[in-house]
Amino acid sequence: MAQADKLTPREKDFSAWYVDLVQKAKLADYSDVKGCMVIRPNGYALWENIQRVLDGMFKETGHKNAYFPLLIPESYLKKEAEHVEGFNPQLAVVTHAGGAKLEEPYVIRPTSETIINRSFAKWIQSYRDLPLLINQWANVMRWEMRTRLFLRTTEFLWQEGHTCHETEEDAEQETRRMLEVYRRFAEDYMAMPVLAGQKSESEKFAGAVRTYSIEAMMQDKKALQAGTSHNLGQNFARAFETMFQGRDGKQHFVWQTSWGVSTRLIGGLIMTHSDDAGLVVPPKLASRHGVIIPIGRTPEERGPVLERAQALATDLRKAGLGVEVDDDDSKSPGWKYAEHELIGTCMRIELGPKDLAQNQCVMVRRDQRKKESVPLADAVATAQKMLDQMQRDLFAKAKAFRDSHTFEVNSYDELKQRADDGFLLAHWCVDPKCEKQIKDDTGITSRNRPFDLEQSPGRCIVCGKDSPGRLVFAKAY
Amino acid sequence: MAQADKLTPREKDFSAWYVDLVQKAKLADYSDVKGCMVIRPNGYALWENIQRVLDGMFKETGHKNAYFPLLIPESYLKKEAEHVEGFNPQLAVVTHAGGAKLEEPYVIRPTSETIINRSFAKWIQSYRDLPLLINQWANVMRWEMRTRLFLRTTEFLWQEGHTCHETEEDAEQETRRMLEVYRRFAEDYMAMPVLAGQKSESEKFAGAVRTYSIEAMMQDKKALQAGTSHNLGQNFARAFETMFQGRDGKQHFVWQTSWGVSTRLIGGLIMTHSDDAGLVVPPKLASRHGVIIPIGRTPEERGPVLERAQALATDLRKAGLGVEVDDDDSKSPGWKYAEHELIGTCMRIELGPKDLAQNQCVMVRRDQRKKESVPLADAVATAQKMLDQMQRDLFAKAKAFRDSHTFEVNSYDELKQRADDGFLLAHWCVDPKCEKQIKDDTGITSRNRPFDLEQSPGRCIVCGKDSPGRLVFAKAY
Repeated sequence: MAQADKLTPREKDFSAWYVDLVQKAKLADYSDVKGCMVIRPNGYALWENIQRVLDGMFKETGHKNAYFPLLIPESYLKKEAEHVEGFNPQLAVVTHAGGAKLEEPYVIRPTSETIINRSFAKWIQSYRDLPLLINQWANVMRWEMRTRLFLRTTEFLWQEGHTCHETEEDAEQETRRMLEVYRRFAEDYMAMPVLAGQKSESEKFAGAVRTYSIEAMMQDKKALQAGTSHNLGQNFARAFETMFQGRDGKQHFVWQTSWGVSTRLIGGLIMTHSDDAGLVVPPKLASRHGVIIPIGRTPEERGPVLERAQALATDLRKAGLGVEVDDDDSKSPGWKYAEHELIGTCMRIELGPKDLAQNQCVMVRRDQRKKESVPLADAVATAQKMLDQMQRDLFAKAKAFRDSHTFEVNSYDELKQRADDGFLLAHWCVDPKCEKQIKDDTGITSRNRPFDLEQSPGRCIVCGKDSPGRLVFAKAY
Repeated sequence: MAQADKLTPREKDFSAWYVDLVQKAKLADYSDVKGCMVIRPNGYALWENIQRVLDGMFKETGHKNAYFPLLIPESYLKKEAEHVEGFNPQLAVVTHAGGAKLEEPYVIRPTSETIINRSFAKWIQSYRDLPLLINQWANVMRWEMRTRLFLRTTEFLWQEGHTCHETEEDAEQETRRMLEVYRRFAEDYMAMPVLAGQKSESEKFAGAVRTYSIEAMMQDKKALQAGTSHNLGQNFARAFETMFQGRDGKQHFVWQTSWGVSTRLIGGLIMTHSDDAGLVVPPKLASRHGVIIPIGRTPEERGPVLERAQALATDLRKAGLGVEVDDDDSKSPGWKYAEHELIGTCMRIELGPKDLAQNQCVMVRRDQRKKESVPLADAVATAQKMLDQMQRDLFAKAKAFRDSHTFEVNSYDELKQRADDGFLLAHWCVDPKCEKQIKDDTGITSRNRPFDLEQSPGRCIVCGKDSPGRLVFAKAY
């Protein structure tokens, strides 16, 4: 069995630590299919919990799930010029099927705006059919050169929201509403603080009018784009003739949005909270809230301990917590501590004969790893309190880390010096040339213009021309 | 808006009725991608409910979800001879990706035994790793010549269970256990009676040792194979060297099973219960349990009715029912009755000024369409009772229909005469030649040998040779 002491320490090589952790905690594995991963049960359980919460939030905001074909006729993609240009290099193409060459090749969906618009154009007749609020949970495929488990894989799992509206304003509101859903999910459930803001022109989605994102900081101070929400304007509506009869009796193109998050979130969760001992999962997204580890040298000692452990597990489960008793006699308690730290169990509860004599147990939170004696009578309430506190502490710690690695930079030299220091707030003239120069010189990219940042005009750190405000720049995944 | 009176009656053309219903109740739609459907929100909601219940049953029996790549290297499929022969004609092939021709083509998974075994071979070391009980929810693709919405589509959604065991006996037990889970789901949730039994050699899964199925009878007396469970023996284990160190210290191939149900179940649900007015959904799988239709000619009448309707909806929702108030002033009550019958709302509740004066409402079950006056004070309890009774009645009605269309046939002539009459129980010598002759002559196929059928030896209805017992034969979807 894999053990925690085999993880490369973060300080030594963050990237190696990440890959070690993902594999040794049995979250995911490489496959023989280029850039595709196998998501193992431990990793998939995280995705199921992410799905459950987000799906509830989507339904609360009026969205319904549907499912559209995996394959898209190549000609569809070509209908929207920017869209095909953006995705063409990344397509996987089906040329043969059923033993024969296809007349027109199909591509495996890299995203579904095109094929979904084909349906929307049929479904929508009048303004009474609007807004149309659809979400799809699906796999998509983008042929990537350099892949990394969860963060960038050829195939990934995601959800893609696609909505149609009567007015430009309605579409803009929806775009921002769903970005806010993502922000809330990231912060309240993943305990991952994010900056919500607008992407630059060159970083927006291929085919969008405006793209908004949430950007998180990983423990290596690099940025992770964790979710995007696009105002598509009428670009796809024009390409697919998605029209409605308006209140004025005339035909109009619908105004659209799309928005998505993916299994990449799991990578973000890992890199935000985990440590050299292994995975740390925010309790709200955990399936394994606790493990009870019975201690005892002899069968006479272990018998009553095990009995009490099972009773405690039952009580904790009744309180809605995912709890198991690790009663494997072939492993030592120390081995089990390390194993559960590796796989991210939120807390362990040690229970031995001495504890039993004093009607207590020892609780250890995964993130702090400090022992705390708790009367057995209070065990359920204390466990719940500790998990709530852990959720809050994880967020506070991550936020303090991000805030202490966010800097205003006021010259190009300063930006270059601080290239690896975190989020850099810099003035920029909005000319894509300056943005490209920064990227070419330093590997730093513009992340977004955060809504919450107090802005005042200044001068572009590259060319010195007028700048309307600061953007976040950072090295990014 | 589509209305129920536009459905082709079942008596006139069952097949046209089915396609009408699926499209007019907005369950699914054709796409431009050959044989692929678009599952619309009304249809996808059924799939979500099916998933939720089945996923719970899989987890209760110890299975965990995981996710494996969509694409499978062509060479993997060739490792198991029967498997590749069975699936080769149905494959969709990716030959190009990322702008270049691939060295080895990938196929889109038609099923995942091969690629999953590649992982299992890495994960399993010893008997302590067994049983390994995995399930995957995924899309798969089989290039079909003749497609029909939900029943047979090029791409479909399904779950595929894949398990590894230490002994042949354990694998057989698992195969039967999961078939029993399917039987329970079909009968207790879908209210669809099924015959659980073993498929003939020629009808088994390509690569399996034994295949079991559940077979349901549709209203046109044709059979629908609704789920299958396969004992794979060591066939895939040998092909992929999926081995474990046994208790004897030696290396052994694992014993495997696989089992699946798909979006085809939605077709089965429709064809079991629905009528000429539209969709009928068993309450346990419905999202729309009830609709309250307020009645009133004037705003003065409608005001208090609407207020009471909203209060009743709140009470019903608190009891866990999916209920909406249809307060659209632009549509008549009669139009709404028809619309909700079409889309399969389990019951409607009519509420008018006269009802209000008498503190009552009128409830109408979707399947019976009889009006029943109910005191408002009892509305919640009565609605729950009516839905429970509807669930039981749907099953009883479907079972009575099946039983009254199941016949013993004792000669080949009798089988031919009764070809369209339903399930035919006939003796067969187990020679595939006789089975093939029946199929070629009559279009009738062997469905399975039901476990619950009392068997005694007899003579094959085709060749007259010894027969160990009767099989169910029927025309099938």
